Amino acid sequence: MPIKSRIRTVPHYPKDGVMFRDITTLLKDPVGFRITINDLVIRYTARHIDKIVGIESRGFIIGSALAYQLGVGFVPIRKKGKLPAETVGHDYELEYGSDRIEIHTDAITEGDQILLVDDLLATGGTAEAAVTLIESMGGKILECCFVIDLPDLGGRARLEKRGHEVYALCEFEGD
Amino acid sequence: MPIKSRIRTVPHYPKDGVMFRDITTLLKDPVGFRITINDLVIRYTARHIDKIVGIESRGFIIGSALAYQLGVGFVPIRKKGKLPAETVGHDYELEYGSDRIEIHTDAITEGDQILLVDDLLATGGTAEAAVTLIESMGGKILECCFVIDLPDLGGRARLEKRGHEVYALCEFEGD
Repeated sequence: MPIKSRIRTVPHYPKDGVMFRDITTLLKDPVGFRITINDLVIRYTARHIDKIVGIESRGFIIGSALAYQLGVGFVPIRKKGKLPAETVGHDYELEYGSDRIEIHTDAITEGDQILLVDDLLATGGTAEAAVTLIESMGGKILECCFVIDLPDLGGRARLEKRGHEVYALCEFEGD
Repeated sequence: MPIKSRIRTVPHYPKDGVMFRDITTLLKDPVGFRITINDLVIRYTARHIDKIVGIESRGFIIGSALAYQLGVGFVPIRKKGKLPAETVGHDYELEYGSDRIEIHTDAITEGDQILLVDDLLATGGTAEAAVTLIESMGGKILECCFVIDLPDLGGRARLEKRGHEVYALCEFEGD
């Protein structure tokens, strides 16, 4: 478990009872960072990908290095109001309240094969919103890719129910 | 100017009179993204670097791909309250009000050679705060590296006055 063992657990962050899985300890380690990206490169190198879409902001770190190595373009999905040009957005429900993600209208071309990347899959709310946004622009989701899956929180089941493939480098159960 | 010509200018963002230099058009282009990172790889490949520190959040995109290709660790500097474990922070002045950036206390080891990376150098306020933070932890700044420099805003002069080397892939004057 060269990847999982390098991920730090921070208890009670961001609130009581949550075990936060912190990838900064993985990223700062040159071997840890390298094998994380290389494992994904091996998986996707023979697949046709037009663009990697990374979700703000830890998804930028994983998605960018992977896009570079695969030689494809990188597109950021950001929180509301952070992108400078014309955007389309999608609102989604959180445990308390709601949130909105946005993408530039010129970021995806009809028919683009998209790999969606984030660091962690929990309830899948943000990932599902991202998938909805990408598909509304005519993008096709090749797969949703994460470093960490928390299967007990149901994100994988939620995305698979919509017909999407989900891949994660490691899992933490009991969350 | 294969890099500069791929950067989009968005007038009056985030406020009237500002010409926002938007790298998302560079990043989504597989050639543009590749040559951006490769130009930096060529510059730094023979230099000794222990870690690349990227500033939230566009600095994550550039810094991460570069760290991967150079085979070094990646460390994020984030806005206040975004990092889960023990942090040190630095407050700095903005045009109106102030801001705070933070880094994990275990992110940098005394004597680490650090390449600081962000997408854009404007007044240099955030970069100077990042440099102060890194040096307070015993890190040595090899260079401060940007995709874009806006020389009229004085960031380069500000960092050089503190004795730091500054490198940018392109400049936009008249800002």
